[in-house]
Amino acid sequence: MTDATPALLISIPMTVRWGDMDAFDHVNNSVFATYVEEARMRWFTTIEGEWRNDEISPILAAQHINYRIPIEWPAEVEVSLFLVKTGNTSITMGFRIVDRRDATRCYADGDNVLVWTSKATGRSIPMPEVARRALARSA
Amino acid sequence: MTDATPALLISIPMTVRWGDMDAFDHVNNSVFATYVEEARMRWFTTIEGEWRNDEISPILAAQHINYRIPIEWPAEVEVSLFLVKTGNTSITMGFRIVDRRDATRCYADGDNVLVWTSKATGRSIPMPEVARRALARSA
Amino acid sequence: MTDATPALLISIPMTVRWGDMDAFDHVNNSVFATYVEEARMRWFTTIEGEWRNDEISPILAAQHINYRIPIEWPAEVEVSLFLVKTGNTSITMGFRIVDRRDATRCYADGDNVLVWTSKATGRSIPMPEVARRALARSA
Amino acid sequence: MTDATPALLISIPMTVRWGDMDAFDHVNNSVFATYVEEARMRWFTTIEGEWRNDEISPILAAQHINYRIPIEWPAEVEVSLFLVKTGNTSITMGFRIVDRRDATRCYADGDNVLVWTSKATGRSIPMPEVARRALARSA
Repeated sequence: MTDATPALLISIPMTVRWGDMDAFDHVNNSVFATYVEEARMRWFTTIEGEWRNDEISPILAAQHINYRIPIEWPAEVEVSLFLVKTGNTSITMGFRIVDRRDATRCYADGDNVLVWTSKATGRSIPMPEVARRALARSA
Repeated sequence: MTDATPALLISIPMTVRWGDMDAFDHVNNSVFATYVEEARMRWFTTIEGEWRNDEISPILAAQHINYRIPIEWPAEVEVSLFLVKTGNTSITMGFRIVDRRDATRCYADGDNVLVWTSKATGRSIPMPEVARRALARSA
Repeated sequence: MTDATPALLISIPMTVRWGDMDAFDHVNNSVFATYVEEARMRWFTTIEGEWRNDEISPILAAQHINYRIPIEWPAEVEVSLFLVKTGNTSITMGFRIVDRRDATRCYADGDNVLVWTSKATGRSIPMPEVARRALARSA
Repeated sequence: MTDATPALLISIPMTVRWGDMDAFDHVNNSVFATYVEEARMRWFTTIEGEWRNDEISPILAAQHINYRIPIEWPAEVEVSLFLVKTGNTSITMGFRIVDRRDATRCYADGDNVLVWTSKATGRSIPMPEVARRALARSA
């Protein structure tokens, strides 16, 4: 896999809620992160085996969001995650939030850096084999 | 002003709410953006004059967040915004979220790119003079 | 129409988001109100005509929620609104949040009191005829 | 203690966030429940002893909110909880959300019914003695 052709990890439909909007009458900026989180959590649940336990957990280390077009309720969007880079302890996932009826209408894109971390020490640790296998299936 | 010594725009106290936490027992990643938004909105209200009207508004074009240390309730944090770069139509603000009792304990940092935009066309327009003056006061 | 057989106003599917959960690993209590709000806002949009303008708006005057069963992500629920009582200036809507695959599994129920209000005076005013007609269609 | 003179359990300051507002330019209805939750969670932490463990937890069984005056950002409010009724397995707490600078300005009031519950069976169980003692201190 190369950065030129990032593999799709997951794509989910997301129904915008009226309450996602703020006083500017658009979906609030922070809610975009919630949409991406939902796709990320659903991808985690596709991992066959233990991707998180009392000792280790992937944590979000960094997030970059480009806001392209404001989202107004009502709307149906699609959130897709792509595998941009796999490291020893981390994954970089790209994301795109597009209109479900017109995928060329991109509301936002960006990326997430996830790092597998020891809960005891707070330090990064090698990604569990089950996660590595799940990524390999997408590549 | 140079990037080496970014000017402080505003610094606000923020009381973490129990409801800010998610099922991982930490403040949810999206809520960090809400903390930064609060500082940003409060800074806007310090502008003397009309920084937003029926025709123009600053919009968040991009946001980058580095998650350094998880925040657990209860906590009192401080959110600071810095002027990193001023353009013709945009501002780049850096931010830091630190512990109110120990400012060396940095929970997160990153930056926001704000672009003044025409509501009619969706295109960027020159930042209003009132905003430019408010930035100059901080520099 | 009598209270004994409340008429269905609207029923919508709602996909629970991971972020709806709190540190107790269940959907947060306040989010139930967001689910009901979504059904309410969607019902408003079914009204043919102007149900809200610069002068008047329905506002939520009271809300009662009975939490029956905790909701855990992932889940698909259905939110239904019923017409319980129509007054001159107000409506009482009952609601139920049930499992989409098992409607006998009721997560929560309760009611909302909505009052049409003058924005200028803050006082209740007679419900607009368009809303009354929309209610009559359901009865 | 009688219902006529409900004892104050806790009173906390709450800073309204811009993001608490919705597209109607007021604090969203569901956020009022978050304000009350914060007071409730802080009161729980004043209990000396174990009020929640792997086997038992108080859960919110019902909530009633009367919305009196819309809250607009920026605002500083105060959330107070009162002991309305103590049962064998449950507590009814009244609440009031008022303006911090003018306590006669009441934004909302209502009540919460909390029931101590067995996590294994989902059934109500007698309130732990530590909670009963904490309530007695307020009466």
